[in-house]
Amino acid sequence: MNLKKSPLAPENFPRLPLVKGMLMGTAKSQVKYKRRDDILTVVFEKNTSVAGSFTQAQIIAAPVLFCKKNLKSGKAKALVVNAGIANSFTGRKGEENTKKLASFTSKFLNCRLKDVYTCSTGVIGEQIPLRPTIKAIKSSFQEKSVSFESAAKAIMTTDTFPKGSGKTIKIDGKDISIVGIAKGSGMISPNMATMLAFIFTDAAIDQKIFQTLINLGLRNSFNAITVDGDTSTNDTVLAFATGKAMENEKIKPFSGIGDARLRKFREALEYVMNDLALQIVRDGEGAQKLVEIKVSGAVSSASAKKVARSVANSPLVKTAIAGSDPNWGRIIMAIGKTKENFSENKIKIKIGKNLVIHNGALAKRYSERRTKKYMRNNSILIEIDLGVGDSQSSIWTCDLTEKYIKINADYRS
Amino acid sequence: MNLKKSPLAPENFPRLPLVKGMLMGTAKSQVKYKRRDDILTVVFEKNTSVAGSFTQAQIIAAPVLFCKKNLKSGKAKALVVNAGIANSFTGRKGEENTKKLASFTSKFLNCRLKDVYTCSTGVIGEQIPLRPTIKAIKSSFQEKSVSFESAAKAIMTTDTFPKGSGKTIKIDGKDISIVGIAKGSGMISPNMATMLAFIFTDAAIDQKIFQTLINLGLRNSFNAITVDGDTSTNDTVLAFATGKAMENEKIKPFSGIGDARLRKFREALEYVMNDLALQIVRDGEGAQKLVEIKVSGAVSSASAKKVARSVANSPLVKTAIAGSDPNWGRIIMAIGKTKENFSENKIKIKIGKNLVIHNGALAKRYSERRTKKYMRNNSILIEIDLGVGDSQSSIWTCDLTEKYIKINADYRS
Repeated sequence: MNLKKSPLAPENFPRLPLVKGMLMGTAKSQVKYKRRDDILTVVFEKNTSVAGSFTQAQIIAAPVLFCKKNLKSGKAKALVVNAGIANSFTGRKGEENTKKLASFTSKFLNCRLKDVYTCSTGVIGEQIPLRPTIKAIKSSFQEKSVSFESAAKAIMTTDTFPKGSGKTIKIDGKDISIVGIAKGSGMISPNMATMLAFIFTDAAIDQKIFQTLINLGLRNSFNAITVDGDTSTNDTVLAFATGKAMENEKIKPFSGIGDARLRKFREALEYVMNDLALQIVRDGEGAQKLVEIKVSGAVSSASAKKVARSVANSPLVKTAIAGSDPNWGRIIMAIGKTKENFSENKIKIKIGKNLVIHNGALAKRYSERRTKKYMRNNSILIEIDLGVGDSQSSIWTCDLTEKYIKINADYRS
Repeated sequence: MNLKKSPLAPENFPRLPLVKGMLMGTAKSQVKYKRRDDILTVVFEKNTSVAGSFTQAQIIAAPVLFCKKNLKSGKAKALVVNAGIANSFTGRKGEENTKKLASFTSKFLNCRLKDVYTCSTGVIGEQIPLRPTIKAIKSSFQEKSVSFESAAKAIMTTDTFPKGSGKTIKIDGKDISIVGIAKGSGMISPNMATMLAFIFTDAAIDQKIFQTLINLGLRNSFNAITVDGDTSTNDTVLAFATGKAMENEKIKPFSGIGDARLRKFREALEYVMNDLALQIVRDGEGAQKLVEIKVSGAVSSASAKKVARSVANSPLVKTAIAGSDPNWGRIIMAIGKTKENFSENKIKIKIGKNLVIHNGALAKRYSERRTKKYMRNNSILIEIDLGVGDSQSSIWTCDLTEKYIKINADYRS
């Protein structure tokens, strides 16, 4: 199936800064995709620290189990990614195959097996053919370093555009880069989905602090998006810090949570994570609109998120958005079906700047015509105030269109 | 929007037995539907007992609140239903309007207000215009009794066919009737949805026993179906027992849970409830296939139901079914995203008679071609054995098609 680029795609792949201390290579295994690179490898200089987060589903793919175990050591030498086969629900043989790919890599690079990270994405239930895959991994190592754009393209499956984001910040007067690439379009739900995201920085940062920052960043990025409420077996976020920009410039590494310089780094990291997550929603299967559901006035941010998720995952709300229909009755229904706290008489709903529900009733100045016009935009904000507290949370999603059905009824993903 | 009859609709409305002790009338209010009857009233002879169950959503429509309160008395004289406006999220005025309709009815029939039951279905957030509605209620009372088919037609909204079911059983050698009518197509999820179901019997049964039987019957009927996972503000099941078939024939009323004759009655009641619920799924918006997800080998039936619901509500599973694609990877994903107990190495999945997954791996004799052929049927059974217990549960659902999107993006329901 040939998929046209999402209408919500950015015009171009962004210009991204270099990250010191890493080399990327891509290659064709020709396993599922005949005409494009489907293998990405990244080799890191020594002392690279790694942080990560994985799918919360109960059935977990072999490469995810492998990465989870390795993450305990906190150091990385190589990342190996294949696109086309997820190596999920493949039993013991699947685990052996992941180990064989990693083991080839560790021998080739002369590093410890536990410093190798493997990720797979694609069809569930099929085994990875080892010979063509290992051959492609080998040839990717022998390439000169490719661009982030080529790297982002090599990990795509049903994606209609490659996803990248980056920031440069000054630490002690010197440039530090934070760059990320990601893939994912369907099966995206909060708490990670069929998505892979890789973040690279040349900052020098202790693994534990790095992991904490990644965990914090997840809340408003990969854990705050949903396309169809489905959760995959392979979701992975991995973040690598080579330290080379600080080491080479003799800048002191980030020393601990109290380090005042860390704030700038954290903001840039969260920008990159949020930007990548939103690009995944922008590539939601069949998506024509990017939608933010922002819930405030909740008793806790967890409660706000549950309400936002209920609205964002309601097929009736999502189809109404597709039809540019300000069908606030369906929003009310989606709030009402949760078990969360709210005050029916204080609920406030805004669609863009249009006040729709005020004190639990249709707002006096509500104009259906104006609201409908706003909803024809390709970026929609729905704000819900539950009227019972001070906490808030956002979820980003997309509309549900006929194209989603076409893609998913016809394509084996 | 003109909707064609669902391809899963029964050929004809069934022939239904008469229920003694009740008269039905229909009329046109011309509020939302200009050319068809949209008001149904039923008047019961005295001593009719009533049982019921309502939406579990937190935001509840005015007529549901009214019925819930009245149900405590356990007696019914009249049922009044309007189609087109749900009288939901309509504040104090909505509650007053419901009361005014009921109060007109109680005066007209010279009965207690608490013996009147009102139900509304349709658009959320609009007030019911009292004058045309009361006028139509009045004219429906003045009609001769109409058929169950006309009654079922008068309560339709987006339904593409009227829904009815019935059974006659012999109690002490005499005929007892149990008949039901229902409406509902979208926004259907377990624990009741935008659906109304009314059950009528001329058996004589104590209200408490009747309520117990209805509660038991819900588990495999209206609480075991899902179209889109959305839950409405108006869902109502009401069951009325006039007692007239037993009273007139001088048969002893059902005396208590220990009454041996009750089993036959319960079976017939559950048949009618299950049949009506499945008709609602058959009229799922855009539905082309009726799907049963049967989960066994679970630690409890609640756990089995949660897994079944996760599979039945997954948009990726539902679109795969629409495309006749035996995409078992998506079924695995939907099981894996629950928090329920299962054994990954013992999971068994059958699609129709085709064994797909056995001991947690693709079955040796699995034939994709044969399974795909089976999936072209318009009635699909997916059986999942979780391999950890003895409990089971079924959920009935339909596939997710482009037509669902078309209906819900274009139509304000």
